[in-house]
Amino acid sequence: MDESLPTTDAQAPGEQTRLRILDAAERLFAERTYDRTSVRDITEAAGANQAAVNYHFGGKDLLYRAVFDRLLAQLREQRIAKIAGAMREGDPTLESLLRAFATAFLEPLIDGADGMRRVVQLMSREMVAPHLPAEVFIKELADPVLRAMLEAMGRVRSGASEGAARLCVLSMVGQLVQLVRMRQMLMDVEQAVVPVSDVGVLVDHVVRFSVAGFEACLGGGESS
Amino acid sequence: MDESLPTTDAQAPGEQTRLRILDAAERLFAERTYDRTSVRDITEAAGANQAAVNYHFGGKDLLYRAVFDRLLAQLREQRIAKIAGAMREGDPTLESLLRAFATAFLEPLIDGADGMRRVVQLMSREMVAPHLPAEVFIKELADPVLRAMLEAMGRVRSGASEGAARLCVLSMVGQLVQLVRMRQMLMDVEQAVVPVSDVGVLVDHVVRFSVAGFEACLGGGESS
Repeated sequence: MDESLPTTDAQAPGEQTRLRILDAAERLFAERTYDRTSVRDITEAAGANQAAVNYHFGGKDLLYRAVFDRLLAQLREQRIAKIAGAMREGDPTLESLLRAFATAFLEPLIDGADGMRRVVQLMSREMVAPHLPAEVFIKELADPVLRAMLEAMGRVRSGASEGAARLCVLSMVGQLVQLVRMRQMLMDVEQAVVPVSDVGVLVDHVVRFSVAGFEACLGGGESS
Repeated sequence: MDESLPTTDAQAPGEQTRLRILDAAERLFAERTYDRTSVRDITEAAGANQAAVNYHFGGKDLLYRAVFDRLLAQLREQRIAKIAGAMREGDPTLESLLRAFATAFLEPLIDGADGMRRVVQLMSREMVAPHLPAEVFIKELADPVLRAMLEAMGRVRSGASEGAARLCVLSMVGQLVQLVRMRQMLMDVEQAVVPVSDVGVLVDHVVRFSVAGFEACLGGGESS
């Protein structure tokens, strides 16, 4: 798929092979599960040979880890960038911060193309049949994003208890994950329990609900 | 395991066999997934013969459905009973209603014995590799509990918009599911991101956060 692109330093032949293997592995692990995907399946799909998997990644388990490292880095950078963006605006408030967070979280997962549906599938499979230690998710995604949120919240809301703030962020993440899950479920069901068509409506709801929830739980006062 | 109980009409030999098969199937489907569990595995664990599965259930797929029917009925009845209990109390409020709901949801999943850990495992497996139509979960669990909540909310809070109320209940369920998931994840991780030891703290947080969220989103006014 990259063949038509000009070869740059970042896309030297070896690097192209590495990326093709990574892309094929991501797709196959998502579609078939870890156990039902062989190194041969991946190299066939990637047009590479089995030695290339060992050369670039060191084996199937480390390739799986590399797939998640790339994925978690993408999600982490997207979310942290949105939080930073909200804080650079003229007069950041609790509401503008939470809106940026909800948008960063929902938009790619709901409106994304096949790629993001794959992310959800891959993450769910890993949750049920884990092949990676839970620390990976905490360290590569949950913790850095939580730290960015707590730091930003300290600026829009001084004197808030950090323990309460952590639980509040968790309350918000739970709502967002549930909306993604329900939406996928309800797309198969004719009778729509919730309005699922409009991401904007969902973001508005989560932001309004959560601003009130944060206010009630955080303590402290509005900064500046 | 039921052999020591006196045989009543409800536990005639055939009924005992049916229950033993159901119990064994629940355990094995949760431990090994649907695909990796054979009818033979189940009948061996249940001390029954394969004909009994066909006689009582009509095959592996209908046995799987029967396992979920029993499970979803249990969860549904527990939750609806707690909601009804809260509404029978002297002066039900939005807070007492949401507290009853959070407790009904978290307590069995967090403090339950192996049985409830199995429920979580079984539900997660089904979510990732569905063998049942999504309608089953909507019809047997989500919808009836949602209806009970909306009816109760109409009594503690008149004039609330039903669309907003649905989204609010979803916001609460999302928080609760996320807490169960994070707690399981964090039990493996030394560094605890949130205080996970005390169910009471978690219930208090979700109730405080959600009462404020409902108030902000529902519209209408306090009843009576």
